[in-house]
Amino acid sequence: MLRIAIVGGSGYTGIELLRILKFHPRANVVAVTSRKYAGRPAGAVFPSLHGYDDLFFTEPDVTYLSKTADWIFTAVPHKTAMSIVPQFFEAGCRIIDLSADFRLRDRRTYEIWYQAHTASEILNKAVYGMPEIYREKIAGAQLVANPGCYPTSAILPLVPLLNSKIISSKRIIADSKSGASGAGRNPSVVTLYCEVNEALKAYKVAEHRHLPEIEQELSVAAGKPVFITFTPHLVPMTRGILTTIYAQMNEKISTDRVLAVIKEFYKNSPFVRILPEGTFPDISYVRGSNFCDIGAKVDRHTNMLILISAIDNLVKGASGQAVQNLNIMAGLDESSGLGTIPLFP
Amino acid sequence: MLRIAIVGGSGYTGIELLRILKFHPRANVVAVTSRKYAGRPAGAVFPSLHGYDDLFFTEPDVTYLSKTADWIFTAVPHKTAMSIVPQFFEAGCRIIDLSADFRLRDRRTYEIWYQAHTASEILNKAVYGMPEIYREKIAGAQLVANPGCYPTSAILPLVPLLNSKIISSKRIIADSKSGASGAGRNPSVVTLYCEVNEALKAYKVAEHRHLPEIEQELSVAAGKPVFITFTPHLVPMTRGILTTIYAQMNEKISTDRVLAVIKEFYKNSPFVRILPEGTFPDISYVRGSNFCDIGAKVDRHTNMLILISAIDNLVKGASGQAVQNLNIMAGLDESSGLGTIPLFP
Amino acid sequence: MLRIAIVGGSGYTGIELLRILKFHPRANVVAVTSRKYAGRPAGAVFPSLHGYDDLFFTEPDVTYLSKTADWIFTAVPHKTAMSIVPQFFEAGCRIIDLSADFRLRDRRTYEIWYQAHTASEILNKAVYGMPEIYREKIAGAQLVANPGCYPTSAILPLVPLLNSKIISSKRIIADSKSGASGAGRNPSVVTLYCEVNEALKAYKVAEHRHLPEIEQELSVAAGKPVFITFTPHLVPMTRGILTTIYAQMNEKISTDRVLAVIKEFYKNSPFVRILPEGTFPDISYVRGSNFCDIGAKVDRHTNMLILISAIDNLVKGASGQAVQNLNIMAGLDESSGLGTIPLFP
Amino acid sequence: MLRIAIVGGSGYTGIELLRILKFHPRANVVAVTSRKYAGRPAGAVFPSLHGYDDLFFTEPDVTYLSKTADWIFTAVPHKTAMSIVPQFFEAGCRIIDLSADFRLRDRRTYEIWYQAHTASEILNKAVYGMPEIYREKIAGAQLVANPGCYPTSAILPLVPLLNSKIISSKRIIADSKSGASGAGRNPSVVTLYCEVNEALKAYKVAEHRHLPEIEQELSVAAGKPVFITFTPHLVPMTRGILTTIYAQMNEKISTDRVLAVIKEFYKNSPFVRILPEGTFPDISYVRGSNFCDIGAKVDRHTNMLILISAIDNLVKGASGQAVQNLNIMAGLDESSGLGTIPLFP
Repeated sequence: MLRIAIVGGSGYTGIELLRILKFHPRANVVAVTSRKYAGRPAGAVFPSLHGYDDLFFTEPDVTYLSKTADWIFTAVPHKTAMSIVPQFFEAGCRIIDLSADFRLRDRRTYEIWYQAHTASEILNKAVYGMPEIYREKIAGAQLVANPGCYPTSAILPLVPLLNSKIISSKRIIADSKSGASGAGRNPSVVTLYCEVNEALKAYKVAEHRHLPEIEQELSVAAGKPVFITFTPHLVPMTRGILTTIYAQMNEKISTDRVLAVIKEFYKNSPFVRILPEGTFPDISYVRGSNFCDIGAKVDRHTNMLILISAIDNLVKGASGQAVQNLNIMAGLDESSGLGTIPLFP
Repeated sequence: MLRIAIVGGSGYTGIELLRILKFHPRANVVAVTSRKYAGRPAGAVFPSLHGYDDLFFTEPDVTYLSKTADWIFTAVPHKTAMSIVPQFFEAGCRIIDLSADFRLRDRRTYEIWYQAHTASEILNKAVYGMPEIYREKIAGAQLVANPGCYPTSAILPLVPLLNSKIISSKRIIADSKSGASGAGRNPSVVTLYCEVNEALKAYKVAEHRHLPEIEQELSVAAGKPVFITFTPHLVPMTRGILTTIYAQMNEKISTDRVLAVIKEFYKNSPFVRILPEGTFPDISYVRGSNFCDIGAKVDRHTNMLILISAIDNLVKGASGQAVQNLNIMAGLDESSGLGTIPLFP
Repeated sequence: MLRIAIVGGSGYTGIELLRILKFHPRANVVAVTSRKYAGRPAGAVFPSLHGYDDLFFTEPDVTYLSKTADWIFTAVPHKTAMSIVPQFFEAGCRIIDLSADFRLRDRRTYEIWYQAHTASEILNKAVYGMPEIYREKIAGAQLVANPGCYPTSAILPLVPLLNSKIISSKRIIADSKSGASGAGRNPSVVTLYCEVNEALKAYKVAEHRHLPEIEQELSVAAGKPVFITFTPHLVPMTRGILTTIYAQMNEKISTDRVLAVIKEFYKNSPFVRILPEGTFPDISYVRGSNFCDIGAKVDRHTNMLILISAIDNLVKGASGQAVQNLNIMAGLDESSGLGTIPLFP
Repeated sequence: MLRIAIVGGSGYTGIELLRILKFHPRANVVAVTSRKYAGRPAGAVFPSLHGYDDLFFTEPDVTYLSKTADWIFTAVPHKTAMSIVPQFFEAGCRIIDLSADFRLRDRRTYEIWYQAHTASEILNKAVYGMPEIYREKIAGAQLVANPGCYPTSAILPLVPLLNSKIISSKRIIADSKSGASGAGRNPSVVTLYCEVNEALKAYKVAEHRHLPEIEQELSVAAGKPVFITFTPHLVPMTRGILTTIYAQMNEKISTDRVLAVIKEFYKNSPFVRILPEGTFPDISYVRGSNFCDIGAKVDRHTNMLILISAIDNLVKGASGQAVQNLNIMAGLDESSGLGTIPLFP
């Protein structure tokens, strides 16, 4: 059994890791940390886990954790992550970091959007943890930077088409709609029930921190710098991101052909589902699962390609993808512990 | 007092007309029709109106209605509308039609998107009822075609900028997000609570019937044919449409300047509120009111203009705008009976 | 015009007072305080009020407020209220306090459930502000203690029946279901969107602070001490309280008779609507309005009386009732500024 | 592998059976019927199941199904169920019927609340499928009547206390709050999104068809006829039933003791979780799982016992419990395929 520690177990992604790993056939969570709940069993703090009372929250003691576990999930905020990841790295643990600290390969870009990078010495060891694109590199990585939720939803539909030059790398627009769980579990007025319910708004318009992450990966796919327009919106639902993408086509091709190209690209990727022409993704069909559903339509009347993707932001956009990375790193079946049917309705 | 009849009083727009007109200082609803509820008082059928029990639903008898009322709101589906509007027109009534039947000036366009037009003889008498643009024509019209909800949210932000040539008329994208009340009150699986709640999807991608209506008005503003990409989405909320628009700029100008142009254009329009730079519309700040809030941002990094508008689809997107048209047609203050503060939270 | 100051204008009840008073024909809000937003216009802080930008938040300076306004709404937490109300009282202002500090006539009861009472010298000047029961006393009061939201929903259906001895004063149960706005606008994990949405739970079971307030008024109606079982629940909606009450009947009477007794009791109360037999209140039919809807059913099979009431907790349960009290105190029509049709859907 | 057929696979309980059985280690769904979708793969009709495209909906041909499968789940409406169950019974299949047709042991009671019973000859063969109470009988049954959702939530907390005479069998009240999925997937105005969202109401007050089912089982536990007051409410959420129960105690005992009695009763029942004193069930902690969470509090001040239970109505209230019954009937571990952690948030 893989011995696993989760650092930061009381946020939504930490709870989701506990949920997913509970029935993983080869993983065993041996430690989970939370300064706030240290000393209390996870099942008492989160009654959804009630009955699984053998696991107690502890303080985040890196030395202890490095000895107890071989695999570390860091589910802490950026900045905190880079303050502890180097120690786990040095201790020889294999790490899946769910923060943004090791996603941007270019240190300067990171420092423009976040803050000074204090672990840049291991930045080039990190592999961007999108299995559908970097599966081989992930297998051998000691440190995997688990992708952001918005980037996952924007990168997966675009990479095959940029890669094959079917679409132009210019004037790509990603209009994303996210549920509130993406904002985390910290108390805040803007994510109070009454501020989100029956509300709908764009935020951080054209300046969200996930922008450089999306552009980094699209540039790799296109083989040249790609700049996009990215508008995130907050939608009154708990889980899910739906991203609607608008792209110019380099040649006139049919919707059918677009879908075939994407399908071929992901033929060995069990979690990417390409919907048939005329049908489009719906958050309610991926909830609780690690799927990314993708649909497409060529708007003949303006010659614009419309791509739509749907993920559960806490699963494929965070903890599920992290477990998928674990599986690959550990040489297991990529789907181990992730074989969940979406919860509908 | 204006004597008013509402034809089709049991759908969401009909109920909303009853709500708004109840306290209108100069209007008096003398008749409201509903085949389904004929003979029953409105306050018994819709307990929100309980206590206002003097108004009974009747069968839709055009002859009777034409004698009883001088002003007719037709809140019935398209096709049904054009089967009755000519009779009211002939009888000399002034009509505000909330259906799509008289919105498209070009009969052929109508027939491509809907069906054969059976009242084309009065099509050229209809004025498109967007007060902020056609106020003078509306004042003298006998028949006003009340705009669609999506068109209202897309046209208002774009007209001043197309008009002033600040943006290109090409490659405009409107990504709209609507609450479920826009789908009406007919029983249907797709609008069941469990199918909409915790769900999010695009529908009628690039083929929604509101597309030609939007393009008609943008073409007028631009002085040449405009074709846009339009993607409607269904969001788990009851009221509201948020439309995020992407447009190319003809020249490099600042967000501040864009906002100033829009503000100047609507300086005499009490229901269009231009938000200060850095703030963006939220459905929760217009709910229950006739406002259309507009925000803007120039994305310097891609030179794309992002415009965002928010309306309550049942008010500014339907019944409120209809009453605004009534006020103008009747020579009243445009805001009569519409002075509501949005219900927040 | 009545010169009005609102102390505590940035919570949900403060915002609701601003909304309701905006179109009140005789009231003029001359000052509104908020430590947090002092110096900023209300319309900038709360965009729902955007466009009404002449009103600026100020620090809560009692001396200044007493001179500027004749009528004071204190919409601050309990404890804070009793620290400022005496000064307004001394200055001769007439006060409507929306906190719990002056609702309990018995100081000791207050101190058991809250804390030491620091303004007990004016406790006996306060009138419990439920207009349907204390209309005459309210008219002459200098200080009105505006009722709690749960108490309003529980007291109104029960008083006529206790008063007439139709029901027993023993074993009354009130099972209340409230929307999240009752919890206020302070940041907190338990009222985050993701903790309330798709969730449902009881809280403070049999120990909520509104219990002694309900019992106080039921005891007055019954003419003897009444003890009840009270269970509040948090429901995923923004506004509204639905209270389901179970009471034993002293004699076998029909549903019809029960409804008639309640209807007779409230015949001069415009905001209490008694629903016909076989129909029951729904939150969606009172939202945004000052109505309290009441339905009843005698369960012949167990001889239990079931009463159900629905209010909008921010209107009849707080700010609307406060304005109703203002109207009565100022000798205006009780409905002034409150003639709103519920927003449905 | 168990060969399983689902009759009625396109309602919410049918879809949920497909979801749960997909990863059941010993069950194989060999047929699923739907008149509406006959001929189409389940994964195309319900994209949540997309990718599992080998299973096609068929017409409900009893002869074919009896040969193809050994185990039959009938997830059809009452009346339809009793028209087909006898044929499966005769063919030797073992049947788990999710309708109400075989739950009431007394034919006359059934006929009062439903209609004439057309399969009364096998009524006495049916075992009421509440595993926590009838585990042994279920093991040997050929026909199991799967309990209703409300009854499951009301019976489980009460049986141990009636059984042990801790509570009185008189004046028990069950105040239930259900999500909208309980109303099924048929088009209907009352379950439209806009009618349920931001709404809350009681319905079928004291006359819901689940009442006799609850009373039947409570009477067994008490050893004498029990009559209760039952009020169902419709709450704006998709899944979940929370039932708040009020009962008189026969003796003064502590909350702690009440919880201990219930815990002892269910010590071998893995899906009943008794919460520690001071904590209460929340729908969000059982969603997607087969758990029934139970909390309790003795209200010392009125000497009333308050019991609260939470279930996911589609799992423990329907399809999960059906699979639990299958496991018991087939001699498998009762938890097979049901080891799901609730989806929180």
